[in-house]
Amino acid sequence: MRNIKLTIEYLGTNYYGWQILPEKPTIQGKITEVLQKILPNPPTPIKLIGASRTDAGVHALGQVANFLTASTIPLYNLKNALNGLLPPDIKVKTTEEVPLDFHSRFSAVGKIYLYRIFNRDVPSPFEYKRSWFIPYRLNIEAMKEASIYLIGKHDFTSFSKKDRKKEVNPIREVKRINIEKKENIIEITVEGKSFLRHMVRVMVAALVEVGKGRLKPEDVKEILEKKDRTSAPFLAPPDGLYLKEVIY
Amino acid sequence: MRNIKLTIEYLGTNYYGWQILPEKPTIQGKITEVLQKILPNPPTPIKLIGASRTDAGVHALGQVANFLTASTIPLYNLKNALNGLLPPDIKVKTTEEVPLDFHSRFSAVGKIYLYRIFNRDVPSPFEYKRSWFIPYRLNIEAMKEASIYLIGKHDFTSFSKKDRKKEVNPIREVKRINIEKKENIIEITVEGKSFLRHMVRVMVAALVEVGKGRLKPEDVKEILEKKDRTSAPFLAPPDGLYLKEVIY
Repeated sequence: MRNIKLTIEYLGTNYYGWQILPEKPTIQGKITEVLQKILPNPPTPIKLIGASRTDAGVHALGQVANFLTASTIPLYNLKNALNGLLPPDIKVKTTEEVPLDFHSRFSAVGKIYLYRIFNRDVPSPFEYKRSWFIPYRLNIEAMKEASIYLIGKHDFTSFSKKDRKKEVNPIREVKRINIEKKENIIEITVEGKSFLRHMVRVMVAALVEVGKGRLKPEDVKEILEKKDRTSAPFLAPPDGLYLKEVIY
Repeated sequence: MRNIKLTIEYLGTNYYGWQILPEKPTIQGKITEVLQKILPNPPTPIKLIGASRTDAGVHALGQVANFLTASTIPLYNLKNALNGLLPPDIKVKTTEEVPLDFHSRFSAVGKIYLYRIFNRDVPSPFEYKRSWFIPYRLNIEAMKEASIYLIGKHDFTSFSKKDRKKEVNPIREVKRINIEKKENIIEITVEGKSFLRHMVRVMVAALVEVGKGRLKPEDVKEILEKKDRTSAPFLAPPDGLYLKEVIY
């Protein structure tokens, strides 16, 4: 048996997110389908494990996934076959053989997300569905000030989607938030060990409210302390979110 | 009568180029259609004049067009109405009132084109139809050396599409060619007063042949001197070409 690790880029616009769904196009579904074609008659059907279950419309610059196979196909041939059969909006950057105990999700020690805001008076054809278009002036310094309250270990209940099916530990550690403006693009980079569902997008929405002056930087601290999802703003659109890197 | 100047961005992928065609989507056709809606019952139908007739699949970061109208609509309202009604892949960056003798094409004193090459082993979902994907190592220094032969006033017959309908003066002046590699992107910027049909794309194709080592830098000089279209390589795909700026 071999354990194969894939590093994947995708434009999430045309997919219902990472996770396989019946009758809907998903990234996991598409890659699994192509793998089954390349590696026919496997002893067991291919089970592709992804590091992050990105939501519908969310993109990836460095999603990681792995699967077990008895196939002896050379890694280089596998990469070429995958990229030849995958659609233009999903591409595999690297194929590696890893130890059998490597698990894309459980072995990860960190994740880096990038959120892109397009900040100009007029939307750009080149940024459509690839960033959050905000035509208002944003106060970057205030956003940076607010972001400091989110760094560290906190109960992020206010910043996550309520999961009705199961109890999830709402304590998460945000290691770093960088906010940088280059020309018309504001890039917000968030690093942590793991994130709650919707957490990055609610954080970004709160920072944007601060940038617009509708919230004060200190309000973010208060929202965090309330541990109540309804106290935080709605969530930023998926279009601007990119899974940038998974750290092992 | 007012003369209105528009600066336009578009992703050319879904269009048959700038110039209006019956039954086909074109940029000029789309903008004219929207203008007729915004400015109804004009004394004469709107005639939108573009600075450059970009080919099918070619993009623009700064196409310029103008039209005459008797409408008194404020420029700001016109811009908002245009961007509200135009599809996401065409947007108007600025609307200005200019002297009545301003003509987008004839008043232009220069044009800057950008050609983007994506140079990595695997294509990127984010670069699909937005650059020329070349998975081979290119010798940038040799390309720069070759580009020097193209700068200046020359007969560019070898580097242009033969126009069967009319005789065109093949003498053109290339003022500047910049070749720069930033990470996986090679940007070739070409500036000139005006260009022959396909000229930038044939120039880029020749430079890429030099980058691959299939042509020597000096061969470009020879191709130019032959004044024969068949002596030059085929043309680079439209996907990588952007009309960056029109100079007045």
